[in-house]
Amino acid sequence: MSNIVFIGTSLDNYIADKQGGLEWLTTLPNPEQDDCGFAAFMDSVDALVMGRNTFETLCGFGGEWPYSKPVFVLSRSLHAIPEPLQDKAQLIQGSPEEVTRQLNDKGFRRLYIDGGQTIQSFLEAGLIDEMIISRLPVLLGGGTPLFGELASPLWFQLVETKLLLGSIVMSHYRR
Amino acid sequence: MSNIVFIGTSLDNYIADKQGGLEWLTTLPNPEQDDCGFAAFMDSVDALVMGRNTFETLCGFGGEWPYSKPVFVLSRSLHAIPEPLQDKAQLIQGSPEEVTRQLNDKGFRRLYIDGGQTIQSFLEAGLIDEMIISRLPVLLGGGTPLFGELASPLWFQLVETKLLLGSIVMSHYRR
Repeated sequence: MSNIVFIGTSLDNYIADKQGGLEWLTTLPNPEQDDCGFAAFMDSVDALVMGRNTFETLCGFGGEWPYSKPVFVLSRSLHAIPEPLQDKAQLIQGSPEEVTRQLNDKGFRRLYIDGGQTIQSFLEAGLIDEMIISRLPVLLGGGTPLFGELASPLWFQLVETKLLLGSIVMSHYRR
Repeated sequence: MSNIVFIGTSLDNYIADKQGGLEWLTTLPNPEQDDCGFAAFMDSVDALVMGRNTFETLCGFGGEWPYSKPVFVLSRSLHAIPEPLQDKAQLIQGSPEEVTRQLNDKGFRRLYIDGGQTIQSFLEAGLIDEMIISRLPVLLGGGTPLFGELASPLWFQLVETKLLLGSIVMSHYRR
């Protein structure tokens, strides 16, 4: 069983710009294309866990829902998943430990943890096993941070690093 | 003429830990060894520019002074360089533009810009031309940040990325 982060970030570790925008991610060819192994990664996970912010950003994109795996939306404030997405996503509540246990018990063993606050709370709980971080060559200078405060340092092992599209450094870390 | 950053950082972009310590940098074999090209890099620069904090940290290490190139210490509060280092370092004042102009006028054309606050003020002034960043596989969760707020995004080009010592990702960026 493992919890994994797969995310694109700026050199200064922002995952959205000051206006919450993601356009800078598409300024370069999309890092979430096959050449970065995203399809293979998605195939390897059993479910996604994300916060309300990430879920609402995804809803705002319009178009086709991007995920074929079950999505669990961690939220205390959201009361229901919008009708058209009720077969794609469901609400979940609890601490990172409780959420991980609930989902593992249901047979979802490999969880894709997404969104800044969600990732931060799972890191703080020591519940991130792998991180695949794709770093674009830009300093955004502000925005939504990928990482937050931690009580104590967390060391990882580098599994692999590779260059994507001539400009993105994708590094795979494991606890 | 160019201003260059060469620095080791954590995955969450801290250059010193919460206590100001650098021990985490030496937990792994020292990234400032020849295999990371630091000696060749030092040969290529004409002078160093650093803030008071970085200078005082270096002074605190004791032992031999690590740099053969002239060091300029950016400080308004420091009144004099300690006696034993007066042939190694000198004080300088002014904005990043003024400091760059002063030093370029004296024939120091390739400047190694060091220290968090100094790097941030030069980035904000658009006066960093290259960054060579060596990222260790650790989340420190707090400390001295490498990057700060910027009025607008700064895009770089990736020149090269390589793996050092099996665990450090060293990436070279150019504006």
